[in-house]
Amino acid sequence: MYKLVLIRHGESTWNLENRFTGWTDVELTATGVEQARQAGRLLKEAGYEFDVAYTSVLKRAIHTLNHCLDTMDRDWLPVVKDWRLNERHYGGLQGLNKADMAKQYGDAQVLVWRRSYDTPPPALASDDPRGQRQDPRYAKLQPEQVPLTECLKDTVARVLPFWNEAIAPAIKSGQRIVLAAHGNSIRALVKYLDNIGDDDIVGVNIPNGIPLVYELDADLKPIRSYYLGDAEAAAKAAAAVANQGKA
Amino acid sequence: MYKLVLIRHGESTWNLENRFTGWTDVELTATGVEQARQAGRLLKEAGYEFDVAYTSVLKRAIHTLNHCLDTMDRDWLPVVKDWRLNERHYGGLQGLNKADMAKQYGDAQVLVWRRSYDTPPPALASDDPRGQRQDPRYAKLQPEQVPLTECLKDTVARVLPFWNEAIAPAIKSGQRIVLAAHGNSIRALVKYLDNIGDDDIVGVNIPNGIPLVYELDADLKPIRSYYLGDAEAAAKAAAAVANQGKA
Repeated sequence: MYKLVLIRHGESTWNLENRFTGWTDVELTATGVEQARQAGRLLKEAGYEFDVAYTSVLKRAIHTLNHCLDTMDRDWLPVVKDWRLNERHYGGLQGLNKADMAKQYGDAQVLVWRRSYDTPPPALASDDPRGQRQDPRYAKLQPEQVPLTECLKDTVARVLPFWNEAIAPAIKSGQRIVLAAHGNSIRALVKYLDNIGDDDIVGVNIPNGIPLVYELDADLKPIRSYYLGDAEAAAKAAAAVANQGKA
Repeated sequence: MYKLVLIRHGESTWNLENRFTGWTDVELTATGVEQARQAGRLLKEAGYEFDVAYTSVLKRAIHTLNHCLDTMDRDWLPVVKDWRLNERHYGGLQGLNKADMAKQYGDAQVLVWRRSYDTPPPALASDDPRGQRQDPRYAKLQPEQVPLTECLKDTVARVLPFWNEAIAPAIKSGQRIVLAAHGNSIRALVKYLDNIGDDDIVGVNIPNGIPLVYELDADLKPIRSYYLGDAEAAAKAAAAVANQGKA
């Protein structure tokens, strides 16, 4: 049996301001740092050891991983940073307040933008300064690989190849993996692992900074999954994520 | 022409306490964090860009790199952590105070331990709790690869293969490299790059947290090298390192 640990980054400045973030590279808040350290404490107390860590190229996930590993005294673990673990790109919504958008367009429209499987938010113009096509971290990608908006289906379409090419073979080779990423890149993995339908994934919310453990069989099918620590607190935190887009 | 940037970690808790550190995994002080951030500011202001970063498996170097890259808004750069960039192993001196040792054994003996090219300090016993043979970060090494003490010659003997196998080919392939490491792993590189004799390397001291730039020709021979920022401050900081082992 294999174990895989997924951690959504700690609270970011734009989580706190309730703004759509996507590929905007915002910092953790002090609360977010503490959540990351608490994740490290939970993993350490439960005796988890890892061989390699994966994260995105966005600092809220990288810093979450760094604080978590530091708390575990495992700063020295190899870390792979890959853009395919980035948050879903939120297109023209990036930077805007979720509750303001709900007041302006209605709760239903914001829920579609946040949680529809295959309807992306309005796209950014390719020269919008909120976009990433000039960002050096994506310089080796083809321009069309740098999204101007994404629905979850688009995020799945880039996360799964990374799972298949990098993460799944590493797990099968016996590497113990911790992965620090984002609400929607983790939802993409959860949808795939738990075989959740396109309509049902809308109800899945990932709380910030709580280790989500998957126990996987030899074919990497989940045997069970659970949040480390206080289950009720994890459920409450997930429900709070669900409510962010309401006016 | 290529450029390579070397940074010795910022002040550590044991630098502050004037203790021999070696492979002991101590933290940065608040001053050390600020030095790392200042290194990042200097590099950013001078327009440096990197493709990959190298560091050791010791947290004072890893954190120095993380703070430096964060200040440059380059958290997303790939980072390679390798034990061969570790500090020189200080054997039985690890944990002891440099000035106390100078009082006990004399300045000359401490200078030999600190700076002799080929005389190592007394070795740790293989089961000494100050040793690293049980440390999981070295679990993949052969036990005899995990030193019980090292002179600088021993450090050179593990740093240079890493230079030849990993860093030199990366530079020649056009990768722009920043390397955050330790006083003696950097002295090993400086000795090799500047072709400094075994007797003369004793006079070379590397200050904490100041970027040392090498401009290299097509064969990776130095054209020139210099510290970024205030040259006088760098010289003073290097002189202070030289004086640490006096009673």
